Order: sequence, then C-alpha cells, then structure tokens
Amino acid sequence: MADLSTCPPLTRASVVKAHNLIRPFIHRTPVLTNRTIDEVASTSRTAEELKGTPWEEAKPANPTLRLWFKCENLQRIGAFKARGAFHAVERLKREPGWEAGGGFTKGVVTHSSGNHAQALALAARTAGMPAHIVMPKISAAPKVAATRGYGANVVFSGSTAPERLAVADEVIATTGGRMVPPYDHPDIILGQGTAGLELQAQVAEAKAAEATSTGAPTAFLRAPTTAPKPTQNPGLNAIMTPCGGGGLLAGTVLSAQGTGIRVFGAEPSFGGADDCTRGLAQGKRIEAVSSLTIADGLRTPVGVHNWAVLTGQTPDSNGKGVDGVYAVGEDQIKAALRLLLERMKLMVEPSSAVPLAVVLYNEEFRKRVEEEAGPEGWDLGIVLSGGNVSLEGFSKLFPSEG
Amino acid sequence: MADLSTCPPLTRASVVKAHNLIRPFIHRTPVLTNRTIDEVASTSRTAEELKGTPWEEAKPANPTLRLWFKCENLQRIGAFKARGAFHAVERLKREPGWEAGGGFTKGVVTHSSGNHAQALALAARTAGMPAHIVMPKISAAPKVAATRGYGANVVFSGSTAPERLAVADEVIATTGGRMVPPYDHPDIILGQGTAGLELQAQVAEAKAAEATSTGAPTAFLRAPTTAPKPTQNPGLNAIMTPCGGGGLLAGTVLSAQGTGIRVFGAEPSFGGADDCTRGLAQGKRIEAVSSLTIADGLRTPVGVHNWAVLTGQTPDSNGKGVDGVYAVGEDQIKAALRLLLERMKLMVEPSSAVPLAVVLYNEEFRKRVEEEAGPEGWDLGIVLSGGNVSLEGFSKLFPSEG
Repeated sequence: MADLSTCPPLTRASVVKAHNLIRPFIHRTPVLTNRTIDEVASTSRTAEELKGTPWEEAKPANPTLRLWFKCENLQRIGAFKARGAFHAVERLKREPGWEAGGGFTKGVVTHSSGNHAQALALAARTAGMPAHIVMPKISAAPKVAATRGYGANVVFSGSTAPERLAVADEVIATTGGRMVPPYDHPDIILGQGTAGLELQAQVAEAKAAEATSTGAPTAFLRAPTTAPKPTQNPGLNAIMTPCGGGGLLAGTVLSAQGTGIRVFGAEPSFGGADDCTRGLAQGKRIEAVSSLTIADGLRTPVGVHNWAVLTGQTPDSNGKGVDGVYAVGEDQIKAALRLLLERMKLMVEPSSAVPLAVVLYNEEFRKRVEEEAGPEGWDLGIVLSGGNVSLEGFSKLFPSEG
Repeated sequence: MADLSTCPPLTRASVVKAHNLIRPFIHRTPVLTNRTIDEVASTSRTAEELKGTPWEEAKPANPTLRLWFKCENLQRIGAFKARGAFHAVERLKREPGWEAGGGFTKGVVTHSSGNHAQALALAARTAGMPAHIVMPKISAAPKVAATRGYGANVVFSGSTAPERLAVADEVIATTGGRMVPPYDHPDIILGQGTAGLELQAQVAEAKAAEATSTGAPTAFLRAPTTAPKPTQNPGLNAIMTPCGGGGLLAGTVLSAQGTGIRVFGAEPSFGGADDCTRGLAQGKRIEAVSSLTIADGLRTPVGVHNWAVLTGQTPDSNGKGVDGVYAVGEDQIKAALRLLLERMKLMVEPSSAVPLAVVLYNEEFRKRVEEEAGPEGWDLGIVLSGGNVSLEGFSKLFPSEG
C-alpha cells in the first residue's frame, strides 16, 4: 500500500482526483429506479406488520422516498471493490521509487476470499504487476478459480485471522510485494468514494433531463408519471450504503463533503454485525465481529481510518462524519433482496440489500425521513454494492417448494 | 383488437409510428455489454466440448462477436410484451367509433397466464378501460395476483386451449370487450418491433460515443480495451431474438427492413418447440406445439401473421423475411442462463437465454458468423425478452448442493 505519509488528505477533492485516476479502468455503472419499490417505501407499514418489532406500539412512519439505485453489481469484477483496488494500484505506480525499486516485479499482496481478492487481481494484472492473494484453504472453489482467472497467484492459509496474517507476512517477506488491505487505508477509502461522486452526478443529470423532457422516459428507467414531482432539489438529498469494514461508507461520506447531501450506513444486526451502530452509540470503535449474517460482505468490524472518517475526526472534516447508521434483521434483508431480484431484475448479493431493508423496515430511519424531509420527501441514492453470488447459494436462501 | 382492415402496413415506417405512439408509456431500456461473455462467444469450442453433439466431427467454428444486450427484462411489467400491449390499446383508442361505441367501458379481453396478461392489464388501466383476462384455474398464484395488481378482472377457465377460448368468447359476449391476442396480430407485431428500433439506435449512439471518447467508458458498460476495435460498421450487423409465437421476432424483422441488418431467431429444440426452424425447413407453418421446455415463454407455435412476416410474404417485404432460425437444447439454455445471471448480474427468465445459447453453442450459427463476418466479426444485438421468474422457480433449476 502507498505509504500513509504520502496519502492525499481525506477530502472530497481527493475523491475527485481518485476518480480521474481510475476512470479509464472502471465502469460508470448505471443508476436505475423502480416505481413499485418507491411506492412500497412511501407507504406506511400497518400496525399488523409492526407486531413483534421494537415499534409495535408506535404510529407507523409515513416517509416519501424516491430511490436511485447505483448498480455496482454491474461494476468490473461485479462489485464496487474494483474502485478501491484500482486506486491503490494506480497510486503505488506513481509512488516515487516504485519502479526503480522493482515494484512492478514484486507486485501486491492481500488476504481476502471475497470481492477484494478479485478486484486486486484485476487491477494488478491491468497494471502489469503480480498479485499474491492469501485465501483460506476452505474458500469456495469458484472464488479461487475466479481469482486465478484474473491472473493472481493464490496462496492458501488456515481460516483464522492470525493464520491468514502469518501467511501474508511470509508472502511479503518472500516476494517483497506490498500489502493492499481490503478497506482500512486512505487510498481504498478514496477509491470507493468515487461511486458516490458518480451517483450524485448521474441523479442530477437524470433530474435535469426529466425537467426538460416532453414525457419520454430516459434511460434511467424512471417511469413517466402524471403527478408533478417535487423538483426543488436538483439532485440527491441523501445516500445510503452498506457498512462492513466501512470503505464504501467512509468514501461516500467524503464524496458528499460540503454538498449538503446526508450519508447513512446500513448494517445487519444478526450476531453483532451492527458494530458500527453500536460503536457510534458507545463512542468507541468495536474492534472484533464474529457474525454469520447472510450479508456475508458485512461481517467485518469498521477499520481504524474508516472509523475516523465516519466519526468526523479527520483534519478536514469540520467534525462532520456519517449522518446515521441503522441495522436490520436477517428476514428483513431477505425480503429486500427478494424485491431487488424479482422486481428490479438485478442479481445482487445479500449485502447489497441491507440499505433497502433499512429504508423499508427500520421505523427509526423511516420516522427520521418523515420528519426531516416533510411531505416533499427525499431523493435517496442507494449503492447496490455487488452481485457476486452463485445460483446454488441463492437456492439455499430461497428453496423451491416442490 | 383493431380491425385488420385498418392496420398499418407491415413496414419499418409503421414500427417507427408505433414507437411514437407508445413512447410515453414504456421504458427505453438500457443496452449492456459484457467482456467475459464476448470472449466466450469469440473462442472456439474444443473438440472435447463438441463430443456427443451433431458437430462432433467438424472443425470448431471460430467467430468473432461483440454482443449488445437489450434489457427488456427491465421493461415495464418485466418484459417486452408491454410494447405490443400498449400499441394495441393506443390503436384501439384511435379507432373511429371506439369512444362513441362505449369502448372505454367495454374494454379489452385476452387469455394468457404469462407476461401478456400483465402487459394488457397495465396498458388498459393506463388508458382508463377495463381488462378481462382469462387465466387457467391452475395458474400460479403470484401471476394471478400480479395481473390483478394491475387492476385487471381475472376470469378463470380450464387449462386446454378450447376451454380457454370458450371462456374468452363468453367474456366477450358478456362485456362487449375487444380481444387482444398475445402475438398473432399486426398491431402486436409492430409494437414488439420497437425494441429492435431502440436497440439499433442505442448501439449506434454507443459506438459513436466510443469512437470520440478519450478512453472513459460509457454508461453502456463496454469496458475499455487497448486493442483497436473494428469500427467499419457504425451500428449493428445483426440482431437475434427468441421465437415463440413470433411477435418479437417478426417485429424485429420489420424494424430492420432496408437497414441491411440481419435478423435471426432462437428456439428451444426440446419437445418440438423448434416449430419455426422445422416450419422453415418444410416450407409450411407448424400449427401446434406441445413442449414443456424450461423456456416457458417459447412453448407456442408461430402465429399466422408472424409467419407471413418471417417468410417474407407480406406486401412490402420484397420477399425478405428472417435470415435464419436456430435451435438449442435445454442444457445449453441453462448454461447460457447461468452466464446471464452470474456474469451479467441480470435476472432474466429462461426464454431470454435462448439466443445467447445459440450464439455460444450452435455450431451451425457460429460457422455462419465466421464465414459471413470474417475476422472483423459482427456486432450482434440480443434481446433479453423478460425477467419474470420467481426465486423458488430458479431454485428448481439450480438446486443447492448442501
């Protein structure tokens, strides 16, 4: 990873610079909307539906929401992780002495069995340097094959964190390669933030096109409506992303710096994966998580650099971090996932469904939208973080009846 | 349905007029590309892979293909059928005497348990007229609920074709509503052809943008490549669509009239669902099909009007119909479906995967591309026809291992 002392400041301007660096290598993924899901989000839940929830006695919230889905499941390697990996590698290439020091021969190293493995493999191959990826021996065969498919050298390790780290250290000692961690580094955070930048621009473009159009719908798939839509705000009011290690969420916070756009995080509550929510409540980062939530991309604790951004403790933040993080249960994630698959026709991994689950089922968040947005409602951007899932995996989540 | 004598001629100009009529009501669905699938399509199959196929002894074909996927799974009601239904209803509204004759009270009638039912329900509701939809009693509950969800009056019948027709006749006698068949009518054919028009325009736009860009990828998701791409042709060389009743395929043939763009159809071979292929070979339309192919939208025989278009027998065709129709087996459809789901991250129904299956696995078609296109290859548009499938249905196709 690029030396910390050489990292750009954690600001929106640095996200813009990161975007310029990686733009030739990534997709400007589409932003889609869905009228049915907007209607569900903008309809109060019934008292019946709230039975057995913490909001059983409360009046159901009545928010108005127009949702804009940023399809990072259509990103290269099928997840936003390509952004951070390309940024990390592009920064390394530019590090003084990188080439002279044999950087292109030594390459990069990471330990990951998920999307970061494939992302780093692709970014390294594109830059013409080797990638050494440490994966647990028990990793699913298709993930190993996919990582090798991008030309990476896969090195197996045991499953525990110490075992993986030990093997990674060994690989670094042998190869001289540089560690590129999956989320806890400024370069990764700045790279992931570029999704938020694009989302902001795309929604503004779409709304401008709608305002001047004669009724013909745009490629953004917002169906024409007869009712006038509120157009006070030329872009988004808020963005929500999933929160695991916090790279995407922290990057999105930076991408919105100074724009007035609120940024929210979404987590699974199962097995304590809501470490960010709990950490914010107790004013202290939670350092370990051990959860088997179906949102398997979100089983990690928030990283140190990520935490600093989320809590507004970085030098240029003016004390402004994330506007709120909300958690939801497994059944709610599954219900939101079903809507994305069956209604939006998008293959997404369970982690991607967590923000929509918050929007539809977390009454605390819904009440907040109702109160802060009023009857005009919010245009809310949601980052669909990835789509790497096997059909057989889905069959376990949604077994056939017959 | 509009009286046949009042129907516009079956020409490209009529497809353009149809597009103008329905444009306010439909989505201009996105066109996506995928580098991995292009690579698979442009790689020769191995002798091993061809074992047990009709091409076991032949030299594997070596076509070059750049594929452009028109995402009608993201169309309203989740399928291209919205185009034909909106066109049929818009044409009825404009029929002399329609309003005075009580057309807006009598409404429309059809028998369908699939996408056409939902499409007609939505189009009728949008136009402010009732839709009476005859469905077999054994229809899946979610399909009945979805059709009712668009405000239709669902009338149940027996499962056989005569039973369904008898109930439809009864409904027409009672309500005075007008029959809108699912595919065998010029208005439906012209409506479905609008997908082909858009696809042609979108690919030309994307290629023009690529030609002038500085390397930044477009929203069309074609990844940047370093190798120069052939840009002789400003748009598509060919389009392939699935072929069931033939509404989409015939409409696409009309949309390409006079453009020089070839049009191909794709069918399942299982249980004789390759009726169009067989009919073309014997020079006579096959009138009945009874197949249980997993591509359940393609279990119908080609309609009379559709057949006339496909065989170049309409007055303005100059004898030019479809350029070829190719069939594939169930395992090939499943393999192509898996690629669309896992690699392109799009939820599509099995019928949508049939053209990609032909492109990847039918050596007769692949040899034809190699010969006609030469080393420059073809830009081939593929219409992904729809995405209405339940997750439980997928779990039957791709059962989990554990």
